[in-house]
Amino acid sequence: MKSEKISEAVVRRLPIYWRYLSELQRREVSTVSSQELGQKLDLNPAQIRKDLAYFGDFGRKGIGYDVAYLIEKIRHILNLDQQINVVLVGAGNLGHALSNYNAYLKENLKIVAVFDAYEPKVGTQINTLKVQPMDELYDTIKNHNIRIGIITVPEYEAQQVANQLIEAGIAAILNFAPIILKTPPHVRIHAADFTTEMLSLAYYLEEGKEDSTDGE
Amino acid sequence: MKSEKISEAVVRRLPIYWRYLSELQRREVSTVSSQELGQKLDLNPAQIRKDLAYFGDFGRKGIGYDVAYLIEKIRHILNLDQQINVVLVGAGNLGHALSNYNAYLKENLKIVAVFDAYEPKVGTQINTLKVQPMDELYDTIKNHNIRIGIITVPEYEAQQVANQLIEAGIAAILNFAPIILKTPPHVRIHAADFTTEMLSLAYYLEEGKEDSTDGE
Repeated sequence: MKSEKISEAVVRRLPIYWRYLSELQRREVSTVSSQELGQKLDLNPAQIRKDLAYFGDFGRKGIGYDVAYLIEKIRHILNLDQQINVVLVGAGNLGHALSNYNAYLKENLKIVAVFDAYEPKVGTQINTLKVQPMDELYDTIKNHNIRIGIITVPEYEAQQVANQLIEAGIAAILNFAPIILKTPPHVRIHAADFTTEMLSLAYYLEEGKEDSTDGE
Repeated sequence: MKSEKISEAVVRRLPIYWRYLSELQRREVSTVSSQELGQKLDLNPAQIRKDLAYFGDFGRKGIGYDVAYLIEKIRHILNLDQQINVVLVGAGNLGHALSNYNAYLKENLKIVAVFDAYEPKVGTQINTLKVQPMDELYDTIKNHNIRIGIITVPEYEAQQVANQLIEAGIAAILNFAPIILKTPPHVRIHAADFTTEMLSLAYYLEEGKEDSTDGE
């Protein structure tokens, strides 16, 4: 199942399905149709059925999808039936804000260490974590089997931090710095840059109206 | 040109093109090929040519795209040849971090007001802006012709804040709270939720291993 290649657009929708399914589960809703999902998530129901069909045929005609089962499936597809340790580099405002999300992450995806190059920040506390100096980065990543890195340092430091993360074996990076990182092909980078989101929103101010659902 | 419907995926790629083109412009590079763009941005060059062709035929065979011209075109498409005012609600760590970006936004897209419902925060300073109380939200949005709202309040406050923004005429919202907002169809919502990015990154941890040469 995992050997089949899934498009990036689908992978990005899975957490969105998952989040809403989790909300349904909290409300003790046990089944949901692709129509309901589509309406709620502003996606085409046919697209949703196609996405979910990648992972096997879960839906039942006239009944819909079993919420608990679908959550479990998506959890498995996203590798979250194991614990994944995350490191955050850059203990500024954004770093603090993201660390606060840790409390919400019940999904085996945990920020387990925070680093900063700025000496006065080292030793300060972010929630339950103590900010560590950069010279402990390599060993901490190795010793805690950390697999994802979050970069929240300023633009001019981001590339160096990325290099250090990759050197220590990190293969997936969420980059909040507004630059395009140069990385080897085996490293997966997601850019989480708020200006990009803002700029694409601006497009819709004039257009405003209907949105199109598209494959990729 | 603006009357043609452009898919959301294309609209989301435009700021990414734009950012890299701006980087080229700073380095005084005047032309770029779709191959170079593709390599740099990890996109298919044919996809890039197709995207840019939506807006007219800018590329010239053997020469490539004129960087300055393309920047101007994308700026126009994204409505950024006018000033767009933005309001931010929620002056916590994330709100602070986003306000700091204001310095980078030379693109006529400016956070001009910051609000918070928590009284001790009202009157404090975020960069050049003073945090305002929520009862000034409506008039401020009207008086400053604010068109985009950013929500960085906790999950349980987000829907109410969205309602207030929409009531005051905001038609585009960037929502950082980890909930799905209920909004009328004319309002454009972009969810900028870091957990979604993180979760989709996790997918690639297992996949990545398959083509990675260095074992763990």
